[in-house]
Amino acid sequence: MSKFWSPLVNSLVPYVPGEQPKMANLVKLNTNENPFGPSPKVIEAIQAELNDSLRLYPDPEGESLRQTIAGYHSVMPEQVFLGNGSDEVLAHIFYALFQHGQPILFPDVTYSFYPVYCGLYNIEGKKVPLTDSFEINPEDYKQPNGGIIFPNPNAPTGRYLGLEHVEAILKANPERVVVVDEAYVDFGGESAIKLVDQYSNLLVSQTLSKARSLAGLRVGFAIGHPELIEALNRVKNSFNSYPLDRLALAGAKAAYEDEAWFQKSCKGVISERERVTKALEGLNFEVLPSKANFIFTRHREKTGESLSKALREQGIIVRHFSKPRISDFLRITIGTPEQNDALITGLKFL
Amino acid sequence: MSKFWSPLVNSLVPYVPGEQPKMANLVKLNTNENPFGPSPKVIEAIQAELNDSLRLYPDPEGESLRQTIAGYHSVMPEQVFLGNGSDEVLAHIFYALFQHGQPILFPDVTYSFYPVYCGLYNIEGKKVPLTDSFEINPEDYKQPNGGIIFPNPNAPTGRYLGLEHVEAILKANPERVVVVDEAYVDFGGESAIKLVDQYSNLLVSQTLSKARSLAGLRVGFAIGHPELIEALNRVKNSFNSYPLDRLALAGAKAAYEDEAWFQKSCKGVISERERVTKALEGLNFEVLPSKANFIFTRHREKTGESLSKALREQGIIVRHFSKPRISDFLRITIGTPEQNDALITGLKFL
Repeated sequence: MSKFWSPLVNSLVPYVPGEQPKMANLVKLNTNENPFGPSPKVIEAIQAELNDSLRLYPDPEGESLRQTIAGYHSVMPEQVFLGNGSDEVLAHIFYALFQHGQPILFPDVTYSFYPVYCGLYNIEGKKVPLTDSFEINPEDYKQPNGGIIFPNPNAPTGRYLGLEHVEAILKANPERVVVVDEAYVDFGGESAIKLVDQYSNLLVSQTLSKARSLAGLRVGFAIGHPELIEALNRVKNSFNSYPLDRLALAGAKAAYEDEAWFQKSCKGVISERERVTKALEGLNFEVLPSKANFIFTRHREKTGESLSKALREQGIIVRHFSKPRISDFLRITIGTPEQNDALITGLKFL
Repeated sequence: MSKFWSPLVNSLVPYVPGEQPKMANLVKLNTNENPFGPSPKVIEAIQAELNDSLRLYPDPEGESLRQTIAGYHSVMPEQVFLGNGSDEVLAHIFYALFQHGQPILFPDVTYSFYPVYCGLYNIEGKKVPLTDSFEINPEDYKQPNGGIIFPNPNAPTGRYLGLEHVEAILKANPERVVVVDEAYVDFGGESAIKLVDQYSNLLVSQTLSKARSLAGLRVGFAIGHPELIEALNRVKNSFNSYPLDRLALAGAKAAYEDEAWFQKSCKGVISERERVTKALEGLNFEVLPSKANFIFTRHREKTGESLSKALREQGIIVRHFSKPRISDFLRITIGTPEQNDALITGLKFL
């Protein structure tokens, strides 16, 4: 704390991302990165931009990428907002599209950046408990609020909420923006983007960090009614005119132009997820049904903390949250077949 | 305006960056980009990062780049804060390091993003008039305030304030953060970074978009006392954990490792600036003394608007601001010798 800090800084409790250890030879299953690399076409597209043109500003509107994403999802470019990773997109959403005088609703077990955004913008966040089986119950979102946000599939649970239930939440809150954060939707869920033309209060965010294997490039976006997108653009253009660099714009576009690679990558993750799930169930683990590129699992006898520590001693890093309700769970990213074998073997001998 | 917007969105007046026309063959002298490309070592370094590792998140702390910049400027890495372009750095500064209950001081003629940040965060901005010769007078900054910010050299004037005058402002405001925005300092000014260990209230921001020829890569930073940097990190980690992508981190680092290229590039711009200045003075223009990679100039008879339009008809784009005091000025980026010749020839025949 310092006399120079603005008053809000003292009260901030920043987000803590999964650690990025710099040691080699780790089996790193803690930050939900894709085990398979990006499409070779992404590399080629960036290569083609890697020249003297770096001296020039990027297109502040990212028009070409917006057109590509709009075409891919069958919406208009005016319905697409781009950001420097979906975390930036979400931050702008919290500032621009929630009614700050009323509580924002999100699950009690969810992406832990949501309460951090609330702290940043002095918004009240209200945690809505998941059911005993860690599911979102749409009935619980029928209460006064200033906006609603949840990941689908939820993180860190991996549980997916069917679109009919998403619609129930949208219908119950016609005066409020409902944000569906679909970071993990491509691993078996169905996107709510198909509903945006029907519900003007729906905003869907996605990222290229997971299914598109581009966590290192920092690209995310939101899709919704042009009126919602305009609010985000107003905030973005009051914050940073050029959030995406030239290489990220080019690489992201190419990622949407290689559907075969994308499908193969998602299928590979899904099939490994099913294999790991079965193996862990055979080792006395309960595994929540996951539609994400990670599983959320607890041993029927051993604590999450002890397992996390024991795995780390073997060079296997998973994520453990010391939080109410989930302190016995581990969130384990689905890795390459070799990494997953290492995990299963590691757990077998604990 | 929409019922879904948060109240603040309605009142926002976003920043309007210089246009990025998509036509070819323009002489584009409107956004202060460097006419010379980045160092070949930047391209090589990005090349080396352009692989499967894009699937992995970047280092959220940008440790390696911070070390390089710290070493270059003879400070500690804990004194360096990185952002996605200096615009993002400045936004975080406005939120984290100004006392929001009191007016923030900046020149009346200056970077037009400052009042926009004030609008974004609901801070009062107070414009302090430049002198008749468009200079900052340190005496004018001896008044109650919640913080002070000015570019040095100033934009769009190009005028540089000697460090002894910067010190006068620092000494007069020991309880407030004074931000020196040095986007253009490498074209003939002296950086205030050498003063940060002496003044705990000094924060200096810089960008790689200008002298380092990397506007397309989006990297900026601030240097100051670790206590100021910690406030920025708290806000950054409540907003977006990974603001710089893997390629930007690698390219930025390499830019600081090719001092010869940097020096040659700056000298090239400075020598062209002197040549363009003399040529314009011969064409009945008044040119403010510039230490930037642009000049701010007015014709003694013709209006800024008419000149800007006439140049545009010749495919030469410069920046004209329809604002009090400066509506007869043009801000002209120093281009390549060929572009500058085109400009001079263009103006000769108007």
